Amino acid sequence: MAGKLKAGVLGATGSVGQRFILLLQGNPLFDLVALGASSRSAGKAYAKVTSWKQGSHIPTSVADIVVTECVPEAFKGCDVVFSGLDASVAGEIEEQFVNAGLNIISNAKNFRQHSHVPLCVPTANPEHLDALEFRDKSRGIHVCISNCSTAGLVVALKALTEKFGPISHVVLTTLQAISGAGFSPGVGGMDILDNIVPYIGGEEDKLEIEPRKILGSFSTSSKEFQLIPEQDMKISATTTRVPVIDGHTASVSIKFANTKPSLAEVQQCLTDYSSQCETLHCPSAPEKPLVYLEQPDRPQPRLDRDIGNGFTVSVGRLREDSVLDYKFVCLSHNTVLGAAGSGILIAELLHAKKLI
Amino acid sequence: MAGKLKAGVLGATGSVGQRFILLLQGNPLFDLVALGASSRSAGKAYAKVTSWKQGSHIPTSVADIVVTECVPEAFKGCDVVFSGLDASVAGEIEEQFVNAGLNIISNAKNFRQHSHVPLCVPTANPEHLDALEFRDKSRGIHVCISNCSTAGLVVALKALTEKFGPISHVVLTTLQAISGAGFSPGVGGMDILDNIVPYIGGEEDKLEIEPRKILGSFSTSSKEFQLIPEQDMKISATTTRVPVIDGHTASVSIKFANTKPSLAEVQQCLTDYSSQCETLHCPSAPEKPLVYLEQPDRPQPRLDRDIGNGFTVSVGRLREDSVLDYKFVCLSHNTVLGAAGSGILIAELLHAKKLI
Amino acid sequence: MAGKLKAGVLGATGSVGQRFILLLQGNPLFDLVALGASSRSAGKAYAKVTSWKQGSHIPTSVADIVVTECVPEAFKGCDVVFSGLDASVAGEIEEQFVNAGLNIISNAKNFRQHSHVPLCVPTANPEHLDALEFRDKSRGIHVCISNCSTAGLVVALKALTEKFGPISHVVLTTLQAISGAGFSPGVGGMDILDNIVPYIGGEEDKLEIEPRKILGSFSTSSKEFQLIPEQDMKISATTTRVPVIDGHTASVSIKFANTKPSLAEVQQCLTDYSSQCETLHCPSAPEKPLVYLEQPDRPQPRLDRDIGNGFTVSVGRLREDSVLDYKFVCLSHNTVLGAAGSGILIAELLHAKKLI
Amino acid sequence: MAGKLKAGVLGATGSVGQRFILLLQGNPLFDLVALGASSRSAGKAYAKVTSWKQGSHIPTSVADIVVTECVPEAFKGCDVVFSGLDASVAGEIEEQFVNAGLNIISNAKNFRQHSHVPLCVPTANPEHLDALEFRDKSRGIHVCISNCSTAGLVVALKALTEKFGPISHVVLTTLQAISGAGFSPGVGGMDILDNIVPYIGGEEDKLEIEPRKILGSFSTSSKEFQLIPEQDMKISATTTRVPVIDGHTASVSIKFANTKPSLAEVQQCLTDYSSQCETLHCPSAPEKPLVYLEQPDRPQPRLDRDIGNGFTVSVGRLREDSVLDYKFVCLSHNTVLGAAGSGILIAELLHAKKLI
Repeated sequence: MAGKLKAGVLGATGSVGQRFILLLQGNPLFDLVALGASSRSAGKAYAKVTSWKQGSHIPTSVADIVVTECVPEAFKGCDVVFSGLDASVAGEIEEQFVNAGLNIISNAKNFRQHSHVPLCVPTANPEHLDALEFRDKSRGIHVCISNCSTAGLVVALKALTEKFGPISHVVLTTLQAISGAGFSPGVGGMDILDNIVPYIGGEEDKLEIEPRKILGSFSTSSKEFQLIPEQDMKISATTTRVPVIDGHTASVSIKFANTKPSLAEVQQCLTDYSSQCETLHCPSAPEKPLVYLEQPDRPQPRLDRDIGNGFTVSVGRLREDSVLDYKFVCLSHNTVLGAAGSGILIAELLHAKKLI
Repeated sequence: MAGKLKAGVLGATGSVGQRFILLLQGNPLFDLVALGASSRSAGKAYAKVTSWKQGSHIPTSVADIVVTECVPEAFKGCDVVFSGLDASVAGEIEEQFVNAGLNIISNAKNFRQHSHVPLCVPTANPEHLDALEFRDKSRGIHVCISNCSTAGLVVALKALTEKFGPISHVVLTTLQAISGAGFSPGVGGMDILDNIVPYIGGEEDKLEIEPRKILGSFSTSSKEFQLIPEQDMKISATTTRVPVIDGHTASVSIKFANTKPSLAEVQQCLTDYSSQCETLHCPSAPEKPLVYLEQPDRPQPRLDRDIGNGFTVSVGRLREDSVLDYKFVCLSHNTVLGAAGSGILIAELLHAKKLI
Repeated sequence: MAGKLKAGVLGATGSVGQRFILLLQGNPLFDLVALGASSRSAGKAYAKVTSWKQGSHIPTSVADIVVTECVPEAFKGCDVVFSGLDASVAGEIEEQFVNAGLNIISNAKNFRQHSHVPLCVPTANPEHLDALEFRDKSRGIHVCISNCSTAGLVVALKALTEKFGPISHVVLTTLQAISGAGFSPGVGGMDILDNIVPYIGGEEDKLEIEPRKILGSFSTSSKEFQLIPEQDMKISATTTRVPVIDGHTASVSIKFANTKPSLAEVQQCLTDYSSQCETLHCPSAPEKPLVYLEQPDRPQPRLDRDIGNGFTVSVGRLREDSVLDYKFVCLSHNTVLGAAGSGILIAELLHAKKLI
Repeated sequence: MAGKLKAGVLGATGSVGQRFILLLQGNPLFDLVALGASSRSAGKAYAKVTSWKQGSHIPTSVADIVVTECVPEAFKGCDVVFSGLDASVAGEIEEQFVNAGLNIISNAKNFRQHSHVPLCVPTANPEHLDALEFRDKSRGIHVCISNCSTAGLVVALKALTEKFGPISHVVLTTLQAISGAGFSPGVGGMDILDNIVPYIGGEEDKLEIEPRKILGSFSTSSKEFQLIPEQDMKISATTTRVPVIDGHTASVSIKFANTKPSLAEVQQCLTDYSSQCETLHCPSAPEKPLVYLEQPDRPQPRLDRDIGNGFTVSVGRLREDSVLDYKFVCLSHNTVLGAAGSGILIAELLHAKKLI
């Protein structure tokens, strides 16, 4: 273990926290050493206080870690702290940690729109992390993971805008998995069996705003940096919940601002896309951040969500759109790329970029 | 039973045929007297040859009806014949029936785009049936039921275009129930459990074309009539299959051609809409063909599909669309309004209009 | 409405309360006039305070009823009060109501094992209600509805014991619907999608004890009566939760105490069974309390739960058991016969027996 | 690859065949070199002719293998051939292969009751394979994999009988995953959504007979061997299909023939059990063939089916049974231990025992 970086997890007993723990197992860069939760759980072994609901059991190396409260002192010595905190408490706690010089990668929504905090989908806008060179170095690094439904979309959009220039309009409808809602209480069985729920509170707003920041740029000066959202992309989102355990699917229509490439060019672009995650050899990076599936009925969540261990976005059904330019179906794993997995890949990018 | 019209069903052992039988039970206008199926079933009691898969059991008055082949002679005396035939055989058989002077209301797709055959969603374009006054009276009446995913959409669109003039653009994504695929084999359990399938063969084409005819007009001369599709409405559809038994949901964005009414006006319009089905007192007509649900998370298939016994379309979540004008969620019962139920309501309209 | 009895519902906003309200709609004997809930809801119109989750909408005649607290004064004049209260409060409240002379039919478990309170499945042991003639008439009538998983089982067992004498051993495993757990929070979507949960807290105990009382007898004296459980029937139950909305299925093996009838005799007995509900012409009584389905793969919850509007128990797959005598599969609708529906049918029996 | 044994798969395009292919990936002992399917597929690359429906994609090393017909000549040189053939053709084809000296491990039911063919669940009765020393060496080895619902049960029963002597009675009800039915057509979506099906054709017979052979013994002479089923164990099984993708759950009641150990002893026995698979260091052997889960609501298919990569049986809810001696809930992965995985582990045992 010598030489590994030390990692902590805040909100360790929640669904996102559990996924951070699971995905950190066997990670060659990070060694999980600290777990924070509410005062109710503090002082007890992790296995005793968590209601573990993952398909794999609690890693044995983690079961006996004594949970602490979410205070900076308990995480001293951590090179990076992953936050799976609920938004109701994440604001204050994360601020304390960063002020104490700790590096925070957060799944909470609180700071996503803050102009001094990068909002990063690691396979979409890894270069935004370069802005951190220009941060106030008296404080820790603070990076936000995007909303789960944003993550898959922006990887596809990034591939397209990088090649063909800005996209002016996006109309999309998502079919989102229930794991995105956590499990206490999460989505009720009576609400989702033989049913869909065409509404997820706050989700459409996130999906209409976050891609602009992720696909935007940043400015730097000697003392600071500032993220600058893309202004001219209009997104109209409808988000629904469907009876699927993992994997958010989106039906996406797009219009390019300046050009209309051919369908073959668009498909080739989606196939060819690569990101810094692979070129910088991040351990968790998938072979490809984006795959195009040619079968007419793909991607499907149960069959395709685990491509690239959940880090690869899959796209299919690309075709002409009679109202906008093109439409396609896009799938991403909401608890890997859409949450904890992105956090870990961001940490790996920070390490590769020598920022931690 | 004296005075009731005599009805027959073609394709009586299939899933649509079974629904025709179920919905005709207790109908005050029609008495079911003839059942047609393949030669394999002909000559045997209906209960012996059907693999009945409905939540209610086979009506006792129907169980002992001896099934015949689908030939006009066996349906002589029927005032109306409902066709649940598969498209692979519907073309030839329905043609024979109409040529023999029998009135056919068909759920098959074969004649839906024929300019001399009305394509009717009874609560959307009942007035198209008036064209039948001008038909060649040596032949029977022939009317097509729309595709199941079309039915709900066009009721909402009709309400809006009737009030605010043409709609120029529609972008929609459907989340369709598996009963729409029938049950032999239908959608496989392994395909739909913990999954969605973002593709339904041929469905998007139907959904992009059928509404134009239904929202179009017709011309007449002394000897004939012709249906004239709406030309200037562009529809972009993505159709998906979700793990829901009954009820097709659609996420719909629209743009008006000439005007942009206020959101309140649009909602009022959806609430106020009425159709000839109610004003002509069709027995199966719902109290309202369209309801607007104000709860933020509705309509939902399991909770709302049975409003108006499955004949009412429910709409909710009306809001501004940042790319088009407005967006909303729309739900209809695919095996009632979207199939057999529409057929029966069309027959009731034909009777009210003294066409049968 | 003149001449109808007045009914109230306690716990009116919960899932059982909602079902009482739904099933009382259109009932020819009872007129729903009073709704009780927690103090949080009291004083407001029912439609404003309930989170209605039924497939049919709130009856319009009920939507505007002002909810009261669950105190006897608010239910004065009610001929019968149905209790859908949670067990945590049912004990005290129901005691107050009965002491105040109000007649309570309760779905709560609190008094089910009380020797002076009949535990009644109306199509299984309606004759137990006759004991109420001998009650202390200074107090109201108090009857308990059985646990939902008990209801279906005992109808089948009653048919068999009535004909063939006592059953000495029962081994059963249930596959129970999630509606049995209510909906706040009820069974979580993450717990039940692509999953079964082989445990329902407290359920196996109920299932091993309640049938003994229901299949038992009662003694009377001039002043009182006493329910006497069957002593010699051993029941071993395993209860599981499955991804089904409504309908509890049970796989049941039985051994008779004194005899082994032929398989044909057992099947005939299950087919022939009738109860006082029909002979006394209770309005909600199903045509048959028990049906035997001969298809090899029935009963199935989605296809058979609604037989007799949910009041009929369906049995199938009767065959020899190599360990006990016979085995079969048994299905009942858990929110109708297994809960609110039984309550209403009990009230109808009480009226037919001139007890209310 | 030098030194690896050569393996083939019959029925390679079916659901069991696909699982053999998936599970052989990365196996350190076997190198997959031959794929057999129907003449329709023969001569074409595997990826072209299979409708692949697994969560992981087709291994690239397999995609281009040219499929052959299922004839012995095409499998010459294979050290072991795994058969995922349908029972309708397995009888004749497997006989030809064994006659040609090829070693067959079959998932088909055809030879399971044959007294000269071991029926082996590798973590339950690996010692039965020792009988093969005494086989007619002019022919290949022929071993059958058990039925999927048998596999989990017999591992638990073996642990108990090994320690406490014979079990005389077993009453069980299974809740089986739909993957057990394959996928063409498999279980229909309309049959299994919001439903359970309390019948699986032929399954109960298998479950009542196969455990007797697996828990039985064998006799040998110089020239041959004979499997001898356990005679005195009576099993009564009810098998049901539930909406679960993978993982068969069973509710099991047992009675010992000669003794009644304490509950603590039974639980300890289930915890302590080990098999030759681990002691002989088979590469696919799980750490433990059997685990006892102490949480009150486990095992659950979605959470526990992947323990030991699907090779570990999990047991929970051990408690006294008021009719027999004890009852418990047992879970096994039906497509791993219950099918293809067992086949591979049997092959590994054969190699460890120097039989191949």
